[in-house]
Amino acid sequence: MESDEKKMMTNASRFELTLPKGVKDFLPVNAAKIEYLRRTLHDLYDRWGYRPVITPSLEFLDVMERGLGAGLRNKSFKFDDRQSGRLIAFTPDCTPQVARIVATRMRERPLPLRLSYDARVLRHEEQQLGKDREIFQSGVELYGLKSAESDAEMIVMAVESLQALGAEEFTLDIGQVEFSRGIMEQLSLPAQQMQQIQETIERKDLSGLRELLAKTDLDPELSEQILLLPRLFGGREVLDRAEVAVSNKRSREAIANLRAVLETLEVYGVEESVTFDLGVLCNLEYHTGITFDGYLSGVGQAVCSGGRYDNLTAAFGEPIPATGFTFNLLNLLFALDQKLDEVALKRTDILIFQPDDDKSTAQRLAQTLRRQGYSVARDMLKRDLEQTLDYATKMNYRFVMLIGPDNKSVTLRTVSDGSEQTITIAAILAGRFDV
Amino acid sequence: MESDEKKMMTNASRFELTLPKGVKDFLPVNAAKIEYLRRTLHDLYDRWGYRPVITPSLEFLDVMERGLGAGLRNKSFKFDDRQSGRLIAFTPDCTPQVARIVATRMRERPLPLRLSYDARVLRHEEQQLGKDREIFQSGVELYGLKSAESDAEMIVMAVESLQALGAEEFTLDIGQVEFSRGIMEQLSLPAQQMQQIQETIERKDLSGLRELLAKTDLDPELSEQILLLPRLFGGREVLDRAEVAVSNKRSREAIANLRAVLETLEVYGVEESVTFDLGVLCNLEYHTGITFDGYLSGVGQAVCSGGRYDNLTAAFGEPIPATGFTFNLLNLLFALDQKLDEVALKRTDILIFQPDDDKSTAQRLAQTLRRQGYSVARDMLKRDLEQTLDYATKMNYRFVMLIGPDNKSVTLRTVSDGSEQTITIAAILAGRFDV
Repeated sequence: MESDEKKMMTNASRFELTLPKGVKDFLPVNAAKIEYLRRTLHDLYDRWGYRPVITPSLEFLDVMERGLGAGLRNKSFKFDDRQSGRLIAFTPDCTPQVARIVATRMRERPLPLRLSYDARVLRHEEQQLGKDREIFQSGVELYGLKSAESDAEMIVMAVESLQALGAEEFTLDIGQVEFSRGIMEQLSLPAQQMQQIQETIERKDLSGLRELLAKTDLDPELSEQILLLPRLFGGREVLDRAEVAVSNKRSREAIANLRAVLETLEVYGVEESVTFDLGVLCNLEYHTGITFDGYLSGVGQAVCSGGRYDNLTAAFGEPIPATGFTFNLLNLLFALDQKLDEVALKRTDILIFQPDDDKSTAQRLAQTLRRQGYSVARDMLKRDLEQTLDYATKMNYRFVMLIGPDNKSVTLRTVSDGSEQTITIAAILAGRFDV
Repeated sequence: MESDEKKMMTNASRFELTLPKGVKDFLPVNAAKIEYLRRTLHDLYDRWGYRPVITPSLEFLDVMERGLGAGLRNKSFKFDDRQSGRLIAFTPDCTPQVARIVATRMRERPLPLRLSYDARVLRHEEQQLGKDREIFQSGVELYGLKSAESDAEMIVMAVESLQALGAEEFTLDIGQVEFSRGIMEQLSLPAQQMQQIQETIERKDLSGLRELLAKTDLDPELSEQILLLPRLFGGREVLDRAEVAVSNKRSREAIANLRAVLETLEVYGVEESVTFDLGVLCNLEYHTGITFDGYLSGVGQAVCSGGRYDNLTAAFGEPIPATGFTFNLLNLLFALDQKLDEVALKRTDILIFQPDDDKSTAQRLAQTLRRQGYSVARDMLKRDLEQTLDYATKMNYRFVMLIGPDNKSVTLRTVSDGSEQTITIAAILAGRFDV
């Protein structure tokens, strides 16, 4: 009775052991997949000559805010620092931090700089939407280049990253904020009206846009160009349509930039993985040229986003052109899901069972096998072989190794099918185990 | 004049772009070393059959506090959650989080559970001491075993970890809190006096301890045992000296546990890497048996610490014995320092220079070489070969590859000594580059 009560209390209190919304525990399978995503991306960045930096979780708010648009500024976790009396923020995005590092601590280094990062950042998000508050970012920044070739490098790297991760059907949706800015800067309308027009374009709401424009006294040719924006998405023919439609210099330069990027994509053979969307007015607030978002087919959330941001380091005292992208690892985890099963879990695992009191043979075998790279654990609970086999099955071990009573040989049992083979201990200790 | 003023302002404002005390930026060399530490440890844990979990950065304060001693509780960063109205804390230690996960989300899984983690945690630290507020932890937890063999597994893994990282001279200092508790529980002294005695023992202040004990009316034999505590450190002979000195069951069981651990260490051949210190009264507040700290010779800060904590999951509703350890990656970085130069920076890097306007040959070569695993960047700035070579030297590239004017061969220049060789482009594209 008393014990039942205790049990109920325990269950009740366990019920309260919840996590704040928007953060998660990752148990072994998903945690291994996230580690696989991290490493695969890091290694790809490395092959492109990118070197890692690690940005701190905490920054002075007034410093970090220089590099944040209003959107992320409002999403930052902040607190009063006991020590300095200044406000401190938890970083909501690595890109402004890398910009700060480049503009201050690395400004003596020769350009270009190729940098990568991999970190968890925190954002206040309305929890009705079920959005993550903790975001796992992995990305690169290329500083010191303005050329289309550097824009293309970002896109090729993003495509190769997705290929390296095993993604099959995906699209990188490329925008160029300068194209629409070249059109929109010709408008002189009240801010509220501009805002409405922009939102309608972003939503690709053509009839809404037509209505809004009808209320203005815009030049009909300019109206036509604006009406074109929500329709300028698709394959490379979009660039042709855009080019004939506009005459202003800024928009035409944007098209020329996209054509030059496309040329490099063709050299790398990734041109089929991209589409264009010239109705993108801005992505993150700091973008100044090409922008792109990567989607896996059938998944609505972008797994990566990137683009050019030539004005960001200036906020930290040193103007340097830049381009970059970041992967959202949790969106990747969700989008790739079962595709990651095999790669993240291909471990060879051996559980060693020794019934004797003296466990030294088991320990020596374990040590030898680990040195060969096998993943090996000793079953240390006092239990019989059947229980050990049951444990090995539930915990997904590949083999159970049973030390024979003569201490001269082992029985290696394949957990999945129960098949067995006998191997001498001397052979294993001599490094001749190979399954 | 105006430009000079601007420059001064820029410098002045740059001066303000500092970081909060206790956190750091890590530039490429150190960041690569940290990544190397992370991976080497993760892979070693993996070979011992440990599977990763990822704990969230945020927890409800009342949940997390169940697993924190007063020390860490006071060091937690906290804030009011807009959404839930509850207090949220940033995690100051992964171990209580893993305990929560094991006791709640993994309690249906068969024991033992071998888990690893790797995360950055935050602690308020008095900044006069210059301590890190952001701590990079990497560690393991072994749940469900009480045996000395499981205690030994932690120590062997910690030793092998240090060996895998290239540490040469190091010591794991092993304590057993039950030994001193067996003696101290026999005392019935006021709390303040107990506290003073404990502190004097921890400081190994023998004369201070003698003075304190003289003021009590303790049994002389017990006094002698207490006076022994600060002197019980050194090699395995400590265990013999301890055994003859005490008669209480709790202390004797602690010695028996240490002897059994030592036996397993001998099987693994790591017994020379440990010393004993029976004057350790507690390490982290949750420890209940063996404790240990790892030191590299000549460095005062421990690089790892671990031990047994059998009561931690009970705070989350499920009592399970446990043992574990954690590495402090920044202390490791400091202690190993130059030893990590080679391993973290052994990259083969090629910078490709193509003077023509058409860069497609350079891009194709880069793609081919990356697929072979080389780390390759295109020099995209418009500049002459001399400037490119200067850049390659400063940025520590191994080779500069100059595409010949005939587009048929390249000159491969070794940056360190200026030596050159000619290779046909056809050979590289056919995968026959091998330097």
